[in-house]
Amino acid sequence: MEHGAQILLSLFVIFIAAQVGAEIAQRLKLPGVVGEIAAGAVIGPSVLGWINAAQIAPGMPIDLLAEIGVVLLLFAVGLETRLEDLKKVGASAFMVAVLGVIVPFVMATLWAHHERLDWSKSLFVAAAFVATSAGITARVLQELGAVTRIESRVILGAAVIDDILAMLILGIVVALQGGQGVQLGSIALVLLQAVGFVAIIGWVGTRVMRRGSRWLERPINPMSPLTLTLALCLGLAYLSTEFGLAAIIGAFLAGMIASETPKRHELEHQMQPLLALLTPFFFVVTGAKIDLGVFADGAALWMLFVVTLIAVVSKLAGGFLGAISLGPRAATIVGVGMIPRGEVGIVIASLGLAAGVFSDEIYALIVAMSLLTSVITPPVLAWLLARSPVRPAAEDEAAG
Amino acid sequence: MEHGAQILLSLFVIFIAAQVGAEIAQRLKLPGVVGEIAAGAVIGPSVLGWINAAQIAPGMPIDLLAEIGVVLLLFAVGLETRLEDLKKVGASAFMVAVLGVIVPFVMATLWAHHERLDWSKSLFVAAAFVATSAGITARVLQELGAVTRIESRVILGAAVIDDILAMLILGIVVALQGGQGVQLGSIALVLLQAVGFVAIIGWVGTRVMRRGSRWLERPINPMSPLTLTLALCLGLAYLSTEFGLAAIIGAFLAGMIASETPKRHELEHQMQPLLALLTPFFFVVTGAKIDLGVFADGAALWMLFVVTLIAVVSKLAGGFLGAISLGPRAATIVGVGMIPRGEVGIVIASLGLAAGVFSDEIYALIVAMSLLTSVITPPVLAWLLARSPVRPAAEDEAAG
Repeated sequence: MEHGAQILLSLFVIFIAAQVGAEIAQRLKLPGVVGEIAAGAVIGPSVLGWINAAQIAPGMPIDLLAEIGVVLLLFAVGLETRLEDLKKVGASAFMVAVLGVIVPFVMATLWAHHERLDWSKSLFVAAAFVATSAGITARVLQELGAVTRIESRVILGAAVIDDILAMLILGIVVALQGGQGVQLGSIALVLLQAVGFVAIIGWVGTRVMRRGSRWLERPINPMSPLTLTLALCLGLAYLSTEFGLAAIIGAFLAGMIASETPKRHELEHQMQPLLALLTPFFFVVTGAKIDLGVFADGAALWMLFVVTLIAVVSKLAGGFLGAISLGPRAATIVGVGMIPRGEVGIVIASLGLAAGVFSDEIYALIVAMSLLTSVITPPVLAWLLARSPVRPAAEDEAAG
Repeated sequence: MEHGAQILLSLFVIFIAAQVGAEIAQRLKLPGVVGEIAAGAVIGPSVLGWINAAQIAPGMPIDLLAEIGVVLLLFAVGLETRLEDLKKVGASAFMVAVLGVIVPFVMATLWAHHERLDWSKSLFVAAAFVATSAGITARVLQELGAVTRIESRVILGAAVIDDILAMLILGIVVALQGGQGVQLGSIALVLLQAVGFVAIIGWVGTRVMRRGSRWLERPINPMSPLTLTLALCLGLAYLSTEFGLAAIIGAFLAGMIASETPKRHELEHQMQPLLALLTPFFFVVTGAKIDLGVFADGAALWMLFVVTLIAVVSKLAGGFLGAISLGPRAATIVGVGMIPRGEVGIVIASLGLAAGVFSDEIYALIVAMSLLTSVITPPVLAWLLARSPVRPAAEDEAAG
């Protein structure tokens, strides 16, 4: 009866902080997620220390809850996204992903080399600037009921492709560190596997589900459509990590597959309580990881400003150029939506630190930049979406 | 992106096992929870080893999910239970709790002394026979839609009182081990605190909620009635552990408080997806903890049979006698509903092992007995409930 006490208190503190933070943010006309992240920063190790760094370390129980939270969030966003609709924006999404990877990668490489790192290390540092973390943007789109907008579809489609490209780049830069050169064959195999995974799961999964979703209701359990699609979500989240992709990519695909069933609206409805309980853990933990101490030193603060500016401008430019066919307004929304690096940048920075490529300073800088891009995106994105006329991509919404 | 992979696989395996187990059980006309526990035993360390002992140890992420699952379950059961209805069965519940504690405690003490333990050690061993674990019974009652039956109310009320008494007995037997005698003053203080906690939270909480539940809807978040009552659930679950009670007691009280709001039916509805996702972890983990190796040795098996028989008969007798005023049929249901010891017996056995009072054999025996009582109760309880006419205790159900 004892061991659970401390963790229950932490859960309570995190959950309450999230509610208070979201409420304040929304009263200030900001997305609730901004308040949740800010609340995390306040109760985290940097300020109040109600949650300490050990509690939110990878593999700890609270970190698992956070991961389940973001996995369920992307599953829910997938539920609102049909493969057909993604296909319509496929070309734009592809361009957004490719340019949104190349521009940051090139700019960050040049910056790192300018900071006197050799080329191979510079490429590794730049890899941390590449991958968009879809969780933050997905939450803003969901909060504003904007998942079915054409810009959102482009962002979500691009996020999937972006993750594949980021994984490829990571594979290449890690291989480069050894100095033994890049084995094009093995890189190509990795690419093929990841693309194959996404394509086969997306294509076969949606077809199977469209043909025969009756099996979802065959079990006796009246909740079976939900439990079976949640099982699919957990399974694909795991599988996608096996293919080197983020767990949320698999969860998003699972949601997209489940969106093909006639039960999709019921499932969307049932996901609401799950998101209400679990996603706050992800955003509060994200906020708690921000080391506000970085801002104490003037020189470090200036460096952080420069790095974050590079991260923001390069991704915005890449995304904007990729989506320019949608018009400048929509292209801006897409570009902004791709800005958050979140946990993906942090993971790459951790790998770099472990490999001895990143110094402690660069590691702290990349982590702070990743989190900062996640904090500044939601208000800007919400403001842009509110000012921009709706261009719904889903004619089926009215019918279904 | 790597660290989460293994745990996602475990979640997937546990979740799928629970669905398969529940489905098979239900097709065999057994409660789904039997299948979930059995599935846990099969995938656990004893048989397939897909889940190992380290993964389900206290404090590990999966154990936290299990705990959240059972906390939410008791919260949901509390939502279906109003203080008014509990008060009506208060006298019966009190008698069931008191006799359901005394009879097993006396019988188990005599058995342990007969097994050549000295009296003070025998009392400690007997303490592990005392406390009912409400989780298993609550799940069966929920699955069968029987929470509002008068027998269920008696069981739930008795479970709260039972937990207070068990904590008291544990306090006394631990003090006895030191040989310095029992300090009546401090024991009385502990009792007073626990009773005070339950009484004040139950009484004040329901009154406050009845008067002014409008504040639940004041936040901007449309899910706020759910999020605020879940926060209450986490907070009271933590607080009850601070008062030496099980977390599920606080969760149950939180649910009972929340049942006073006009939102109770909406909340019950919203709890369904949360229970569907999280309670399977509790029951599969319970099953995975069963060490089937105990059954390999004939002498040990016989000993286990005797111990379990004592545990079952003593609790059944105590509960039956306490509820006899409801008639023999209802009293039998109440007695059976009190049989599961589940994790409470295990926690006490762990304390005994750590204190050097329990030998490894007695520890293994108590753990196996605790789990066995949890496995055998659901089918018997379901069978009894199905055969017994409904005596609803809640006239308000039709009106509300």
